[in-house]
Amino acid sequence: MNDLPKLHDGPLKGAAQVDPVIDGFKGAAVACGLRKDGREDLALIVADHAVDAAGLFTTNRLFAAPVAVAKNHIQAGRARVILANSGGANAATGQAGLEACLRACQEAARVADCPLTEVLPCSTGVIGQVLDDQKIRAKLPELFASADDQGLARAAGAIMTTDAFRKMARAEAIIDGKKVSVLGLAKGAGMIRPDMATLLCFVLTDAAASPQALGLALGRAVEQSFNRITVDGDMSTNDTILLLASGRAANTRLEGDGPGLSALTEALTAVCQDLAQMMVCDGEGAGRMALLHITGAADQSSARKLCFAIGNSPLVKTALASPDPYWGRMLSAAGAEAARENLPFQPEKTRVWIEGILVGDHGARASLEAEEAAGRAMQKPRVSVRIDLGLGQGQYWVMASDLDHNYITLNVSYRS
Amino acid sequence: MNDLPKLHDGPLKGAAQVDPVIDGFKGAAVACGLRKDGREDLALIVADHAVDAAGLFTTNRLFAAPVAVAKNHIQAGRARVILANSGGANAATGQAGLEACLRACQEAARVADCPLTEVLPCSTGVIGQVLDDQKIRAKLPELFASADDQGLARAAGAIMTTDAFRKMARAEAIIDGKKVSVLGLAKGAGMIRPDMATLLCFVLTDAAASPQALGLALGRAVEQSFNRITVDGDMSTNDTILLLASGRAANTRLEGDGPGLSALTEALTAVCQDLAQMMVCDGEGAGRMALLHITGAADQSSARKLCFAIGNSPLVKTALASPDPYWGRMLSAAGAEAARENLPFQPEKTRVWIEGILVGDHGARASLEAEEAAGRAMQKPRVSVRIDLGLGQGQYWVMASDLDHNYITLNVSYRS
Repeated sequence: MNDLPKLHDGPLKGAAQVDPVIDGFKGAAVACGLRKDGREDLALIVADHAVDAAGLFTTNRLFAAPVAVAKNHIQAGRARVILANSGGANAATGQAGLEACLRACQEAARVADCPLTEVLPCSTGVIGQVLDDQKIRAKLPELFASADDQGLARAAGAIMTTDAFRKMARAEAIIDGKKVSVLGLAKGAGMIRPDMATLLCFVLTDAAASPQALGLALGRAVEQSFNRITVDGDMSTNDTILLLASGRAANTRLEGDGPGLSALTEALTAVCQDLAQMMVCDGEGAGRMALLHITGAADQSSARKLCFAIGNSPLVKTALASPDPYWGRMLSAAGAEAARENLPFQPEKTRVWIEGILVGDHGARASLEAEEAAGRAMQKPRVSVRIDLGLGQGQYWVMASDLDHNYITLNVSYRS
Repeated sequence: MNDLPKLHDGPLKGAAQVDPVIDGFKGAAVACGLRKDGREDLALIVADHAVDAAGLFTTNRLFAAPVAVAKNHIQAGRARVILANSGGANAATGQAGLEACLRACQEAARVADCPLTEVLPCSTGVIGQVLDDQKIRAKLPELFASADDQGLARAAGAIMTTDAFRKMARAEAIIDGKKVSVLGLAKGAGMIRPDMATLLCFVLTDAAASPQALGLALGRAVEQSFNRITVDGDMSTNDTILLLASGRAANTRLEGDGPGLSALTEALTAVCQDLAQMMVCDGEGAGRMALLHITGAADQSSARKLCFAIGNSPLVKTALASPDPYWGRMLSAAGAEAARENLPFQPEKTRVWIEGILVGDHGARASLEAEEAAGRAMQKPRVSVRIDLGLGQGQYWVMASDLDHNYITLNVSYRS
């Protein structure tokens, strides 16, 4: 599957246009004092009863305490509570961090009256400081008491760190005659890289499906979305994506591959692609994203590596910010990666289109006029770039952010 | 050899303090109209007679026309002329670019009265535009006529693109009782990556040495300098480093390994390390560099990969700009690379020192006080970071630039 995602034309406002209600789940948020600015910083998603669940986590060797705990808890495939905080990643905090995370989970399990393993913790924020679980525990009764079916939008707000807007997306599917819904909420911005692009993403569905079926669908959707975006090439200590299924749509429970799982996967992929696009586009108006599509590669594996090399290149990213249709930097980034990884790549066989305009023709400039036209066509928030390598049938695409002053401003002053 | 380079404390003014005279070579520069701003853009280095030479070039598959020509010409190990221009890289220019480069070389060979293969061309600037060799050829008689032994400083100026200052360095050695000098001039800034960090670097010596001996010394010096710096992780289409030896010092001609070659290599390494440090520090006052030293790695290869992963991380670089002693981002960048490359790395065994202050202790924060002290100690242009992995005897170091607004400003508007 290599369908290109749909590029949205207008501003991406995230949560504003999305119906936040989904059968079987409630949400809530509260300010518990982890953030210095007093914003809501503790989010709750709670299912009406224990539901089927699957998850994907960062592969960073420096993984946070909540990642260790959530990975362990989700092994049974059942979940009741997602407890997520901003204001501190609880990563690089050793045994003290692990214990703080577990204390918060234990209190949530007590308030929800469920087993500890049905609580999935997530954290985001600064690395290196132990979570102040006392602040969290003190607010849990209030948090659970305030949960309602409109509260998921507030939960999406409380997990934001440097995000400029709340990120929610929704899609529907029909499974054996029953309408099922998929609702996703996420936070992104910074620390985004191919292997596990989102910091935190929670997807809820009212479909009925086994943990195994959910795992299959989630893996496929993430491969077509979060695994294909690049903001800064870094991978977080806390990346977590969770999928919970309430079963309220009353379809025959999905157990494995088949038309039902395909329908669910398609809806899940649409939600994840929308959220991924929001993550790449965060900064709203300040940033620009490119959908980089490599075709004609010797194979998919080399297309993928070259796509990411181009999308991660700071020089390509700054040209995208300009905007400058600087196809030469794209080929240079590809040529460098081809040399490092010994990939098939011949500049004289390549062609580069920006917004459908041929600007690089067999390794040289198509024409000054074409470049100028492409420069004008790039004056929009989301642009398409296609590079044909002229070698074979392999292809891949990624969504890449630009690199502009906002990135520097946010990350230079992140802890201050 | 893993000696740490000497970090300079004061401002790096480059050419200002360096004696630009070296026996056997003359230099000159002229404005030939390749640059829009009218600055000198054509540099000449000319030897009094054909001399021994060696070179190293970018491995980018998209290599510029002058790289193709210079690689070919230097195979014989003899050179008379280095002809270098800014204002255009002549990369991604196909056959037309190659022919333009050769026409410029042919005219230089005619004026210098030497074989074509003794002319080494270099270009730097925008990718994708064919070199206007007519502008170069028209100025060659004037350029050669104005060459003198003070002119190498002007040559260093004419190869600057976004460099904030001219880069020259000098060192001396004693070889069988004779004093020999090594003088280097370089341009850097942007497009700097491990495999071949400098865009253009010309090193001249009055030592007598065979092309083979020069190649050995150059490879060793570059491994201890330009191959260990990272500005933005990209590799240029035009990276070139050339070493020419006039033999005027009248030492017994070096033919291979021995005390003489070691002495030459040491001086060459000092020159290259100084130039490399200038490249990383370019921006003078705006930028900050870190000498990242990994010790206690399982082996040198993993130490090298982790060093570059940390040094290339945009999140580490922005923290360095702040300055913020954010050791957690360093460990996170290392943990991500360890996962990707399957390298030995255990966060709980690591220790991190910034300017000699222990800030990360076995994967957790040493103390808030230590972090604050390190933050104060980072208020200088060049800071040292040591990360001990607690695993073995492997070590490596790199010099890494920060990432601040100047990088964005330069690269967003590079072609405008």
